[in-house]
Amino acid sequence: MSEAPEASAPETLEVSETFTRAQELDAADELAPLREKFVLDDVVYLDGNSLGALPACVPERVQDVVRTQWGSLRIRSWDESGWWTAPERIGDRIAPLVGAAPGQMVVGDSTSVNLFKALVAAVRMAAQGGHDGGAGEVRDEILVDATTFPTDGYIAESAARMTGCTLRPVAPAEVPDALSGRTAAVLFNHVDYRTGRLHDLPGLTAAAHAAGALAIWDLCHSAGALPVGLDEHGVDLAVGCTYKYLNGGPGSPAFLYVRRELQDRFDSPLPGWNSHAQPFGMRPDYEAASGALRGRVGTPDILSMLALEAALEVWDDVPVDAVRAKSLALTDFFLECVAAYVPAGAVECLTPLAHAERGSQVALRCRDAGDVMKRLIAGGVVGDYRPPDVLRFGFTPLYVGFADAERAARILGETLS
Amino acid sequence: MSEAPEASAPETLEVSETFTRAQELDAADELAPLREKFVLDDVVYLDGNSLGALPACVPERVQDVVRTQWGSLRIRSWDESGWWTAPERIGDRIAPLVGAAPGQMVVGDSTSVNLFKALVAAVRMAAQGGHDGGAGEVRDEILVDATTFPTDGYIAESAARMTGCTLRPVAPAEVPDALSGRTAAVLFNHVDYRTGRLHDLPGLTAAAHAAGALAIWDLCHSAGALPVGLDEHGVDLAVGCTYKYLNGGPGSPAFLYVRRELQDRFDSPLPGWNSHAQPFGMRPDYEAASGALRGRVGTPDILSMLALEAALEVWDDVPVDAVRAKSLALTDFFLECVAAYVPAGAVECLTPLAHAERGSQVALRCRDAGDVMKRLIAGGVVGDYRPPDVLRFGFTPLYVGFADAERAARILGETLS
Repeated sequence: MSEAPEASAPETLEVSETFTRAQELDAADELAPLREKFVLDDVVYLDGNSLGALPACVPERVQDVVRTQWGSLRIRSWDESGWWTAPERIGDRIAPLVGAAPGQMVVGDSTSVNLFKALVAAVRMAAQGGHDGGAGEVRDEILVDATTFPTDGYIAESAARMTGCTLRPVAPAEVPDALSGRTAAVLFNHVDYRTGRLHDLPGLTAAAHAAGALAIWDLCHSAGALPVGLDEHGVDLAVGCTYKYLNGGPGSPAFLYVRRELQDRFDSPLPGWNSHAQPFGMRPDYEAASGALRGRVGTPDILSMLALEAALEVWDDVPVDAVRAKSLALTDFFLECVAAYVPAGAVECLTPLAHAERGSQVALRCRDAGDVMKRLIAGGVVGDYRPPDVLRFGFTPLYVGFADAERAARILGETLS
Repeated sequence: MSEAPEASAPETLEVSETFTRAQELDAADELAPLREKFVLDDVVYLDGNSLGALPACVPERVQDVVRTQWGSLRIRSWDESGWWTAPERIGDRIAPLVGAAPGQMVVGDSTSVNLFKALVAAVRMAAQGGHDGGAGEVRDEILVDATTFPTDGYIAESAARMTGCTLRPVAPAEVPDALSGRTAAVLFNHVDYRTGRLHDLPGLTAAAHAAGALAIWDLCHSAGALPVGLDEHGVDLAVGCTYKYLNGGPGSPAFLYVRRELQDRFDSPLPGWNSHAQPFGMRPDYEAASGALRGRVGTPDILSMLALEAALEVWDDVPVDAVRAKSLALTDFFLECVAAYVPAGAVECLTPLAHAERGSQVALRCRDAGDVMKRLIAGGVVGDYRPPDVLRFGFTPLYVGFADAERAARILGETLS
């Protein structure tokens, strides 16, 4: 931990008031007891939007999976320990957190691989007449968020190349104007990984649909952080990772959502044997399973998958609306503390102040941001650095409290003074 | 355990002689001490070609990964615990087991996903003039082993569809006649999953090359069971799973081999951010990394990946040639015991008797095979059933001994009497 510089009198006053406020907010926080469900230490961990903290129930479960299910039952566990059905079972566990009814999600593969499935399947559906399956036009263009997390753009480029489409990067706000009868699908990021901006999922989905295109959403930075409403807003396909706000562990498998009405038309570019109607029939010809199972591919990575399943238990009886309310309160309070502690002009907030446009992170532009983040980490505040000049602080309402926010801002202020 | 039926006198004599022989063979087996490195019980486990047994060092390693690396170091583990470089590091650990020099393999994703990468990349290389990169013909046909494990065929069909090729299933022995100037790539299974037949990797690879096509090998049933010689025989691309003879755990990530000379031409259909030349540069445009890294896609599943890494430690100082010699001795001996114990005509061996054509399993055709396997499992002998009529017994030389082979055949004989 770095030594705090000696504070001058007015600053001491501010520190004291803000510090007291943090205590009061924590005392009034109904979600505060959830922190006990995680393994934490005296570090302020604001990097849960990169890798969520370890839920306390996970280590024992993983030991049971390794020692008993693998070590003792061995191959019998595919049935007896429920390994075979884990992708759809865990999909159904995540579903309510993103506003999806059961039977529309599977877990498995990485986000990148799921993006490929979703994009290619969307273009194929569009070739049958767009998102509503009506009479067809030639739809040979994919639109992608121009500020997307890079892998989405790379994979969209590949999907476009392999389906004879053109890829067109467009700023999300300009998507409505860019849509046309040629648009097959639009791939959006729900929350911008860099700035923390929350995009208008209902409005942009409706705009895509009005043009007859399919809407695909990448929920990596929103699943587990805020209500998504996949079913309510008629999203067609969605993907997301499970190791950020869902705390599934490093590289835990991603999820794929396929809206029920589209499942019969979901034509996967990765038709592995796990998605076959009779996977153990060992048939030479492929026949797709019905439902969400169609999104499966090969043998699922059981250790990572069942660690995720255990991690999801912390969500029992936790309403996503309450998580969202705390997230906004936390980021509001953090920004207040930053204003109180950080020298004027030293940072610029890239994250929108309007609640409707804010995810669960705060991104601050700052000189020498890479070096500043190193010093923050040395001072016990872990966020991350996104080149060229962004300090990124993620707020996971399940285990981050207001005192954490106050301390992070205070140490940031000390670092920049 | 089922009760053994009372044996008649001549049978008792045979049992006794064969049983003694097993003891002698085990006593002379230099690999026998390796069994101590696995968690085993009194079951005869002949299903290691479906899910390898648990190596004893794995549970503690996994606990360390979960509790310390994830739980305490959290995001720092991407660097400090070597998570980021695990795919290529573990690839290099597997490489000598399949006859590959370092720098040509990465671990990650499922076998099915890696098959897709390999097939599409092969067709793209073929479009540049076949496996040697010479002057181009139109190569628009993929040949696939007609008796392949189904997922290979399904994925090959998808790769063909997405690259404008035709897929043609051909029995491996007929591949040389089926090759032509149109052949872009041939996908072979090194060992047939059902019959245990070992295909001629050097000869078939040379035949594919002579026709200017690329040779892709699926090593799921040979990696860790027998020498493969990828480099020696000039194989172009190979994939394989790690949860069978490599004992990596349920659904542990698969590997992808890309021959060094082809790496600059490897054009992945799944260009995720992990395969970017500057993955943390967050560049909007894709630029492929050099070398084997190009086969990576998204964030690797660290728990499954590092369990595999621990599991591979049992291979320290174990020569694959010794494993192969024991495998052949075990399967020879098992067939002898079957001949001694099983009523004549009750089973038919589908696995070739010639060593050069045998993998590390014995497949027996048998009436009511599904029911017979259930009774064997109840009797403490675990193999598996492959529809419609095959009993499959896998022999993992690292932990299966000759007494196991004798007991399995004896209980099979009792079951079928």
